Amino acid sequence: MAVRHLVTGGAGFIAVNLIRRLLASGDRVVAIDDLSTGRRETLAEFETDGAFSFIQADCSDAARMAEAIGQAGGADEIWHLAANSDIPAGVSDPTIDLRRTFLTTFGVLAAMRDQGVPVLHFASSSAIYGDQGEALIHEDIGPLMPISNYGAMKLASEAQISAAAEAGLGRINILRFPNVIGAPATHGVILDFVRKLKATPDRLEVLGDGTQQKAYLHVEDLVSAMLHIRTLEGARQVFNIGPADDGVTVRFIAETVRDRVSPGAEIAFGEGNRGWVGDVPRFRYSIDRLAATGWRAALPSQAAVTRAVEEIIAQEAS
Amino acid sequence: MAVRHLVTGGAGFIAVNLIRRLLASGDRVVAIDDLSTGRRETLAEFETDGAFSFIQADCSDAARMAEAIGQAGGADEIWHLAANSDIPAGVSDPTIDLRRTFLTTFGVLAAMRDQGVPVLHFASSSAIYGDQGEALIHEDIGPLMPISNYGAMKLASEAQISAAAEAGLGRINILRFPNVIGAPATHGVILDFVRKLKATPDRLEVLGDGTQQKAYLHVEDLVSAMLHIRTLEGARQVFNIGPADDGVTVRFIAETVRDRVSPGAEIAFGEGNRGWVGDVPRFRYSIDRLAATGWRAALPSQAAVTRAVEEIIAQEAS
Repeated sequence: MAVRHLVTGGAGFIAVNLIRRLLASGDRVVAIDDLSTGRRETLAEFETDGAFSFIQADCSDAARMAEAIGQAGGADEIWHLAANSDIPAGVSDPTIDLRRTFLTTFGVLAAMRDQGVPVLHFASSSAIYGDQGEALIHEDIGPLMPISNYGAMKLASEAQISAAAEAGLGRINILRFPNVIGAPATHGVILDFVRKLKATPDRLEVLGDGTQQKAYLHVEDLVSAMLHIRTLEGARQVFNIGPADDGVTVRFIAETVRDRVSPGAEIAFGEGNRGWVGDVPRFRYSIDRLAATGWRAALPSQAAVTRAVEEIIAQEAS
Repeated sequence: MAVRHLVTGGAGFIAVNLIRRLLASGDRVVAIDDLSTGRRETLAEFETDGAFSFIQADCSDAARMAEAIGQAGGADEIWHLAANSDIPAGVSDPTIDLRRTFLTTFGVLAAMRDQGVPVLHFASSSAIYGDQGEALIHEDIGPLMPISNYGAMKLASEAQISAAAEAGLGRINILRFPNVIGAPATHGVILDFVRKLKATPDRLEVLGDGTQQKAYLHVEDLVSAMLHIRTLEGARQVFNIGPADDGVTVRFIAETVRDRVSPGAEIAFGEGNRGWVGDVPRFRYSIDRLAATGWRAALPSQAAVTRAVEEIIAQEAS
């Protein structure tokens, strides 16, 4: 029988790419989204597929979530992707990440217990680690001192999932996402730069001095890692997901976008190596655990950025 | 000028012992409590002290908390002790620790930001670590996989405090409490055993096989550690607090209570070495970081238990 997947934040950027792959494998998918950020049109490509359905619900409402699972005829696995996706917004107002990043997890766990759903795949984040300086960030590093409300509420979610696992949840995969890029983009540095250059083609203003360096994973690689981890045996797994490189600088991204959108533009860098409170200047993210299971990204950071720039330019032109 | 302290969970067991010391040092204290568990009578000894005042408020209500801080004429330091104190109750209903252990922290942080209070001392817990097996639990160990909702929501609180510190909070002390005993007891294994033996003097039933071993700290030692850490220089400090021993078994506690309350009683042990879901059978808690600053407990676990048994028997007789 086809596996019944339920995907929260189902109209979001990563969900759309995941759902495409799940449906292609012959499984059934119910997408749940409150449409506060995501848009129903994003799911248009699936609407004629009988294996797909959509339910509008806020998953921080446990009773509504339980009802939605019942309405869907039950679920075998939940992919919990719903969260605030605008980290700087959550820095200025902590209640955003409380409600959208943490209470969504709380609601999902309560509904899973109520409806007896045994498997949870959770979209966690490298933001839980905070600023670890030059230390190589493997999954077991401590202490975890997140420096954004988003990171704090992802860590809070992991903590609650850990307690729920002890209390009877069957299987949990904690997936610590890196910076993920691709289409359909709704936020992020590439989309910002593309839009800024369209508005003012002669000049691109960049927060920080451009030396900030991060690893970027293309969303297709992210989904391939998620599906790979799903096939592994562990009952409680925690994995960093990312490319096998140290990343690219903000300067590289700015120049790549500039060269494609407005080649003559001047790039004006700011000062300091933090773009905003809660941002981390440098990040050495270990993916050794995942690599040991045989997975690796098809695209390193530089190629992922180059490709995502093309995809986002196409998205913005349409 | 006298330092203005604000103590949340101010009518609770640990707060009463802390407030006594703070007032004795000449500082001012405002106790805040919603009186859902704590009782106003617990604070009777301070009521005639002009340096003490009490405000009834639920500190998960940030606006009410901010108002209370204003009403108190501002605060220099907050000791945030409010939390669910009944861990097993929180295991069966996760919303208890959500509201009382996590959202209280969230409300306190929002109110501190609103009112410009610069210093937070937070009552965290060894429960954040989960079951680390035979590993020595120092402050930087990872991964943190709490196995109770209480531990999860204490870890969530630490995460939110970490993000708040990055966003401008002046100074934070994360105090990871062990099992704390003494009077006025409102819950815990000693009180349970005393009450059970009073109800059925010939027989004491014990959850688990009695081999479960934990370190216990007397509340007077806990408060002395809290005040010691307050005098240290760090802007963001995390300390395990506990005695310098591996603790005592449940069997020792049961026998100590039995010998004092009902010497002829039979002790009937259960099976397994976990009392309830979320409990940890054995726990090697490192206090090396705190010891390196010159502090140590006056009472080791065994003496702490023996003394607390006397205090709780006296409390129950009055």
